[in-house]
Amino acid sequence: MSASPPERSTISFLTDYGLKDEFVGVVKSVIRSIAPDVRVIDISHDIEPHDIRAGGLALARAVQYMAPGVVLGVVDPGVATERKPIAIEVADWEAYLVGPDNGLFAPAVSLVGGATAAVILDNTNYHLSAPGPTFDGRDIFGPVAAHLCQGVPLVELGSPIDPSGLVPGILPVSQADDDGSIRAEVLWVDRFGNVQLNVDPKELESWGEFVQVEGGRSTRTAKRVTSFAEISTGSVGLVVDSYGLLAIAVDQGSAALELAIDEGSQVRIRAADGPTSAPSPVVIQSPVVGQSKPTTVAPSPEPSTG
Amino acid sequence: MSASPPERSTISFLTDYGLKDEFVGVVKSVIRSIAPDVRVIDISHDIEPHDIRAGGLALARAVQYMAPGVVLGVVDPGVATERKPIAIEVADWEAYLVGPDNGLFAPAVSLVGGATAAVILDNTNYHLSAPGPTFDGRDIFGPVAAHLCQGVPLVELGSPIDPSGLVPGILPVSQADDDGSIRAEVLWVDRFGNVQLNVDPKELESWGEFVQVEGGRSTRTAKRVTSFAEISTGSVGLVVDSYGLLAIAVDQGSAALELAIDEGSQVRIRAADGPTSAPSPVVIQSPVVGQSKPTTVAPSPEPSTG
Amino acid sequence: MSASPPERSTISFLTDYGLKDEFVGVVKSVIRSIAPDVRVIDISHDIEPHDIRAGGLALARAVQYMAPGVVLGVVDPGVATERKPIAIEVADWEAYLVGPDNGLFAPAVSLVGGATAAVILDNTNYHLSAPGPTFDGRDIFGPVAAHLCQGVPLVELGSPIDPSGLVPGILPVSQADDDGSIRAEVLWVDRFGNVQLNVDPKELESWGEFVQVEGGRSTRTAKRVTSFAEISTGSVGLVVDSYGLLAIAVDQGSAALELAIDEGSQVRIRAADGPTSAPSPVVIQSPVVGQSKPTTVAPSPEPSTG
Repeated sequence: MSASPPERSTISFLTDYGLKDEFVGVVKSVIRSIAPDVRVIDISHDIEPHDIRAGGLALARAVQYMAPGVVLGVVDPGVATERKPIAIEVADWEAYLVGPDNGLFAPAVSLVGGATAAVILDNTNYHLSAPGPTFDGRDIFGPVAAHLCQGVPLVELGSPIDPSGLVPGILPVSQADDDGSIRAEVLWVDRFGNVQLNVDPKELESWGEFVQVEGGRSTRTAKRVTSFAEISTGSVGLVVDSYGLLAIAVDQGSAALELAIDEGSQVRIRAADGPTSAPSPVVIQSPVVGQSKPTTVAPSPEPSTG
Repeated sequence: MSASPPERSTISFLTDYGLKDEFVGVVKSVIRSIAPDVRVIDISHDIEPHDIRAGGLALARAVQYMAPGVVLGVVDPGVATERKPIAIEVADWEAYLVGPDNGLFAPAVSLVGGATAAVILDNTNYHLSAPGPTFDGRDIFGPVAAHLCQGVPLVELGSPIDPSGLVPGILPVSQADDDGSIRAEVLWVDRFGNVQLNVDPKELESWGEFVQVEGGRSTRTAKRVTSFAEISTGSVGLVVDSYGLLAIAVDQGSAALELAIDEGSQVRIRAADGPTSAPSPVVIQSPVVGQSKPTTVAPSPEPSTG
Repeated sequence: MSASPPERSTISFLTDYGLKDEFVGVVKSVIRSIAPDVRVIDISHDIEPHDIRAGGLALARAVQYMAPGVVLGVVDPGVATERKPIAIEVADWEAYLVGPDNGLFAPAVSLVGGATAAVILDNTNYHLSAPGPTFDGRDIFGPVAAHLCQGVPLVELGSPIDPSGLVPGILPVSQADDDGSIRAEVLWVDRFGNVQLNVDPKELESWGEFVQVEGGRSTRTAKRVTSFAEISTGSVGLVVDSYGLLAIAVDQGSAALELAIDEGSQVRIRAADGPTSAPSPVVIQSPVVGQSKPTTVAPSPEPSTG
């Protein structure tokens, strides 16, 4: 009973343009003029300006749900420099990715089988002529995405390059340390304050119900739960999030605020003995700005035996 | 000369997801993959996180203007708990409402004739399989809305439940008190600072041109006007707003800021003698934080004789 | 290989409604009900409330890229007053502009050949009946835009008026002063902090590589460059922006913050001798609020000889 959208009929669109300026609307207007039947789906336009990492991770989270067609991504601190405008073809998906060659697409591309072909967008027949050099979304990337949807072959759009030479993404890898703990990094803090870590839940399979989370200003004991509602008020929980990664959460509140951590923060997790040994914060550093010495409010627990 | 959109070809979409994360785009991508011809109209995605009341009131204000099809609403503090995912059929409108059973739809449903049927969305054939349990918009509600648009009958989607058992909305009712005043509540403060009250203008039909408004830090005399421009600078006006409810406004400024009130605030209105008796604020509490005693700057007016 | 969208099949939509309230979604719902095949492209809805100038400039920047059809613009501090709701036909473009007659469209209209016809929207057959008088986007402008797309002729929509009597826009003009300097105004500060001036780059054609920029709290020497990357860290550059106007920029930072200027600020530019004479700020006013006397930290340079 469900249907499939026609091939190359959808452009999934992510930028750091914001929604206050008319940038996004202008790119969509250009697409509409070239490829009137294409549907544009906004993935996000509120990526922090020039935050390639955040844009790349958002594309990676979204890519497996996108309709086939073109992914148009513009987070481009190097606009109008020597960085290359590119289009990428991938192995496992009927879609192309169009934007700057700066690593923005690397995480998503690796999730859909890797790049099988790429071109530098140097055929200006498929660009708009620009009064100035600073709006490649309007003048290059948008028009090229639209022309791809109209059936223009990839090789028409520019000079082929070896896809293995594309700028790689820098994705932090979690590390298992000798003491059994895992050094992780915060990949993402969502609107609700949930804290996604670069940790596969399988790494914790042999651990018990409780886990210690060191990060921000404190060490907290977190309960491994399957839903937010199992986290009691004021406590911290570890869930498998909607992307299959480990995430720190509190019930109806912001775990990021609670733990004072943000995207890119380092977090260490280790197996804990359980709620009787450490049900509450054990070491708290003062949140007062300018006071850097940790204030010990309880003795550190014995090293966990998992 | 005007046409009608085909049945079940529109999804009206409201969430508290925000527009920074890729949540909204992912749900739209899922819908596009299942029901490629459906048009999604964003009602709002900037409902405050978990604010069921605000989301429900926005849906109620919008519902009579929506195209027939499906209302997809996700403000869901209880995601992945025992609250039920539901789809509702209503009496007076060719549309279904899909989302959590937490009262979000109650105000809108009551405006379109009440619920005539409802199902719990427990037929997982119409869901996506989820790597984690926390994104029901992507995994349950979005796919179900899309399948409804593709013609799947309501009863296919899950187990029927008695619609009278749906979680009710909590809509504050204004109260006429013995002294002739009306105790009201602020339903909504819009972007422009206009303050919508839960008061039918008919309740004031026999009142004079001027009305006293007690709320926030002050009692103000407001003029009943038919347009913002009739409100002189620095004064407060009472208008019938674009939804037919009584609203407090100031000309080209924010009435909410002027009166220091917000959504959910209590306001009392009473008939006033007119501008000569009380043209200016009569009792002002200091806005200084920490100073709670009211500062009387003028004698209280005599009780109005309306 | 590119196609054209059908005539009158696109509505380009700009407002100051914001995206939190349901205003935009309701107008789109009304359009969908009247003209189901029309595509609405959001230009921006985050124009500052009542900022006709900013809305008008955004439309002017976008208009040459818009698909033909209808431009629906609502920035309307005078809603429900004597200002007229209008539709405008223009000379060089197959499109109509619909909204309030308050100067919002004037800059865009002048870019597409000027208005050739206009009507006051007083034929209520093409409006929605409104419960209150304050939402003309929903009740008048949205429905009229949709009916225009359905083929309703302009003259059907209301009484013709002389387009030369439309409210003009107020566009600041830069001035060449006797000392060879140019008095300019900041038209726009974009999300990235780039500062667009009302200056045609041709006015600087005979100038050298370096230009002095006086504005905000300081006088800076700016280098004329063709891309952001040519601006060294901490320096200021002058580029031709993507709309062909002169803009002040810093590399991967906000020129508006760096120079402490905003939309509407006055800026004076004059030819400079080059980097050896004035490579760094020469006069700095203290940014401390309340301290108004300029603090001279270096002697003023000799008047440039260009």
